[in-house]
Amino acid sequence: MRETHSSHRRAPPASAARIALYEAGAEARFEQVDLRTKRTAGGQDFRRVNPLGLVPALELDSGLVFTENAAVLQRIAHAHPKAELLPSDADGAARLQQWLCFIGTELHKGVFTPLLDEQAPAEAKAYALSRAPSRLEYLASKLSGREHLLERFSVADAYLFAILNFALVTPVDLKPWQAITSYQARLHERPSVARAFQEELPLYREEQAALKRRAS
Amino acid sequence: MRETHSSHRRAPPASAARIALYEAGAEARFEQVDLRTKRTAGGQDFRRVNPLGLVPALELDSGLVFTENAAVLQRIAHAHPKAELLPSDADGAARLQQWLCFIGTELHKGVFTPLLDEQAPAEAKAYALSRAPSRLEYLASKLSGREHLLERFSVADAYLFAILNFALVTPVDLKPWQAITSYQARLHERPSVARAFQEELPLYREEQAALKRRAS
Repeated sequence: MRETHSSHRRAPPASAARIALYEAGAEARFEQVDLRTKRTAGGQDFRRVNPLGLVPALELDSGLVFTENAAVLQRIAHAHPKAELLPSDADGAARLQQWLCFIGTELHKGVFTPLLDEQAPAEAKAYALSRAPSRLEYLASKLSGREHLLERFSVADAYLFAILNFALVTPVDLKPWQAITSYQARLHERPSVARAFQEELPLYREEQAALKRRAS
Repeated sequence: MRETHSSHRRAPPASAARIALYEAGAEARFEQVDLRTKRTAGGQDFRRVNPLGLVPALELDSGLVFTENAAVLQRIAHAHPKAELLPSDADGAARLQQWLCFIGTELHKGVFTPLLDEQAPAEAKAYALSRAPSRLEYLASKLSGREHLLERFSVADAYLFAILNFALVTPVDLKPWQAITSYQARLHERPSVARAFQEELPLYREEQAALKRRAS
C-alpha cells in the first residue's frame, strides 16, 4: 500500500489514513504531496493520481487507487480484518458510514475546509465558523459517556481525531465541549495515534516555518 | 422502513433515498419534514429523530435510525441484496464509497449547500460557486463513455442524480459538460428515477408556490 498525504497540510498531524494503517499493522509506504505545486516528494505530478489534487490517495499493491477519506479508510479496514477497524454487521457498517459522512460533510467540508483555505473570502470563513457550534454540540452529545464513536475504536475515530486537530489552526474553539476534548485526550494516548502525531509533527513544523518565510 | 425527506427541500425532486427504495422494491413509508419548523407531516418534532434537523433519516423496522445520505443509501442497498445496488467485493465497495464521499463533500456540501442556504452571505455563495467547475470537470471526465458511475447502476447514481438536480435552482451551469447532462437524461429514463421525480414534483411545486407567497 502507498498512501499520499499533504506536505502543505495547513493543519497539524496526524492524518487519518496513517492512524488507520498503523492500527492495522499494515506495510505501507507514505509519500508527501505538496498541495501548492501538486508534486509528490518523489517529484511526480500528483494530478495524475487525483486530478482534483486532494489527499489522501491510497494505492493498493494491485495498482488500484482510491481517493476520498471515507473510501480510503474503509478500504484499509477491509484489507486488515484482524484489526477490526470497522463493524462486520450491516447496521454497524451503516453507523460507521453515518459517522464518516458526518465528519466529512458537516465538519471537514462544512466547517474546516473554508477556514483553512487561504483563497476563501472572510465572509465564507465566517459562514463556515457559524456552522460549528451546532455540529460540535451534536457530536458532544453523542460522545458523552462513550469512549469511541462506536462500541470500539474504528476508522471513524481516526478520521474524527484528524479533523478535530484542525481546531488548533482555525478559530474553532472546542473547549466548551468537554466530551470532545476528553475524547481527543483519550485518543492521543492510543499508540497508533501517538506515533502518527509524533512522526508528522516535524513535517508540520517544517511547513509552518516555510509558510512564515514566504509571508515575511 | 420509514424515510423522511424535506418538504422545504429548496431543490427539485427526486430524493436519492426514494430512488434507492424504488429500485430495491422496498416497502417503505415516506414522511415529509418541514425544514423550517422541523416538524414532520405527522406533526412530530423531527429534532427527536435528528437533532441537526438534516434529512434524510431512515428508520428500519427494528427501530434503528440512520442519518446521512451515504449511510442511508448503503443501508438500503444492504437490506435488498437482490437489487444489487452496491458492489459486493471490497474494491467495488470502496469505489462506491469514493463516489458517495465525493458527491457528499465536493458537490453537495462544498458547492450546493451554501448556494441553497438563504442565510449564507453572497461571498460564501460566490466561493462555493467558484469551486464548481473543477468538480464538474472531474466528474465529466469520469462519466465520459460510461453509462453509470460504476459498472452498473448503484446507489451512487441515485445520489448523484438527486444532487445534480440542485443545478436547476442554483447558478450552477451543467451545460458545458455534455457527459453530465447526457448522464442526467439517461438516468431520468430509469423507472425508479422517473417515478420518484413524478411523485415529488407536485410537492416541489407546492413548496415553490408557498415560498413565493411568503416572499411577496
